[in-house]
Amino acid sequence: MVEVLDSRWLERARDKRWLVAVSGGRDSVVLLDSLVREGVENLVVLHVNHSLRGEASDADEHFVADLADRYGLPFLLTKEDVGGIASSSGKGLELVAREVRLAAYVKGVTAYGCEGVALGHHADDQAETVLFKLLRGSDGFKGMKLENELYVDPIFLKVYRPMLGARRSTIDRYVQEYELEYREDETNNEPFTPRNRIRHEVMPLLSDVMGRDVVSAINNAWEACYQMDDFLDSQINFHQMLDPQGRLFLPLLEKQHEAVQGRVIHWFLKEKGVKDLSRGVVHSCVALCHVHGVAKVNLPGGGWMRRKEKRLFVEWGE
Amino acid sequence: MVEVLDSRWLERARDKRWLVAVSGGRDSVVLLDSLVREGVENLVVLHVNHSLRGEASDADEHFVADLADRYGLPFLLTKEDVGGIASSSGKGLELVAREVRLAAYVKGVTAYGCEGVALGHHADDQAETVLFKLLRGSDGFKGMKLENELYVDPIFLKVYRPMLGARRSTIDRYVQEYELEYREDETNNEPFTPRNRIRHEVMPLLSDVMGRDVVSAINNAWEACYQMDDFLDSQINFHQMLDPQGRLFLPLLEKQHEAVQGRVIHWFLKEKGVKDLSRGVVHSCVALCHVHGVAKVNLPGGGWMRRKEKRLFVEWGE
Repeated sequence: MVEVLDSRWLERARDKRWLVAVSGGRDSVVLLDSLVREGVENLVVLHVNHSLRGEASDADEHFVADLADRYGLPFLLTKEDVGGIASSSGKGLELVAREVRLAAYVKGVTAYGCEGVALGHHADDQAETVLFKLLRGSDGFKGMKLENELYVDPIFLKVYRPMLGARRSTIDRYVQEYELEYREDETNNEPFTPRNRIRHEVMPLLSDVMGRDVVSAINNAWEACYQMDDFLDSQINFHQMLDPQGRLFLPLLEKQHEAVQGRVIHWFLKEKGVKDLSRGVVHSCVALCHVHGVAKVNLPGGGWMRRKEKRLFVEWGE
Repeated sequence: MVEVLDSRWLERARDKRWLVAVSGGRDSVVLLDSLVREGVENLVVLHVNHSLRGEASDADEHFVADLADRYGLPFLLTKEDVGGIASSSGKGLELVAREVRLAAYVKGVTAYGCEGVALGHHADDQAETVLFKLLRGSDGFKGMKLENELYVDPIFLKVYRPMLGARRSTIDRYVQEYELEYREDETNNEPFTPRNRIRHEVMPLLSDVMGRDVVSAINNAWEACYQMDDFLDSQINFHQMLDPQGRLFLPLLEKQHEAVQGRVIHWFLKEKGVKDLSRGVVHSCVALCHVHGVAKVNLPGGGWMRRKEKRLFVEWGE
């Protein structure tokens, strides 16, 4: 049998109810099939139709509805005109699509009392994500987690990626072994988005240059960084760094290791609603801890961070 | 004036004596010129002739000797037949070249009573190094430091890279501004080594895919990881994890965060002389901390790490 699911996750998963997000593509079809095959019984199939590819989108929807029917599982559909919402709201397509998906997950998890939503990301997706975020610079060296919890109004949504340890090649073997049918998403092959170019151009070039597969190297490095990040978080009492007025208290902060200062300032700026934080901005704000340096750093969104009377705080322009 | 040197380093550098490693290539020529121009007076020029490129190697040597002469600085030469040593010793060219360079640095620093050796690496080198080590997987997410100390028998050698914050484009501008001559090292353009392919193929592709320069994103991410790594080290009392016989004491280790366990085990294995440690091996050894898992992990070089009587230790084969 071809193993694609995380075995430790599986042990805990069997007696719970899961929402499974199925696009109809190879990965999510394998996720659903492997969960069924492993005897995880309380599954609910969710499909989100983004209405972005006309008839192909509807064909995906029918394919997944049929699939759920064949497995004898409840089928939940969210259909939204993502393109329309994007143009009327002025938001980007990717962002709207993500918001629609998250809302659908919350609705499904709540309606069926599920433990969380299971997604079909695998190890190759992870390496591509880590590389993409690293190169974009905004999130540093970040990746996806096997288990994650994020606040999506009004609940904390639990997101699981049980195939995160499985390679794309293993998923291919799974498809062959069990002769699974799935839908090709042509947008995955569009050459012009950065994510697709990382998959189709960058990753093969990197493996060729290094003379070996680079996915596990990238994922192992990320894992190590993630652990350090987690350890760092565990060592910081964030609220203890504040004065009674909720400003960062410099006499405490300036004694900390630079890694702690960076983490505390990042947390503080996020708490104050600063968006699009880059490492560069956080780095500049860390310099505010030095009492003899600059006293003000501009923030994205029109505000600034200021040092005054041994405090750091955020002010917004008029 | 085009700034290429780290200003904080420069403040501390003026009143000390420095060995400057000059290959004759653009970067080291700019390093030497900028040090002289900034008024750092006690410089000694070192050139290492690896004898790998016949007449071109000797021409580089003469070029650097003339350069030192024009600046009125002492010139120190180390000439070794790196190719010959490599074939007679069975070691790789890269390794022998590195050993020869380190020995030359130690000799120069000792003979002239220098604070350390200054090298010409810059920000683009750093990004390429970070990416290369990340993809190779052995060193995780590692880069070069502005200041580093490494043990090269019989001293702790201090290595400085004062141009590590400067971009290649800035160094190019410096060369133009001061009309500097330098020697082209054709091996930098050989298309077949992984390092050169990262420079000439990977980095341009990454910038093209992301639609922006990626060097600072990579270097900032590395900086953040380095700080976390440094913080992690600062929180661990490594020797406290040992029992009186120098074995890892599991009742203490198993209570630690996984990041700490990984760091302690990595340190322990290095102390025990295990070479070529990959993250994968360390990860497997961390699993030994779980008392109900496997009790033995094979190590590179023929030894193994074993768990027995609440201790972890290394054994070597016969």
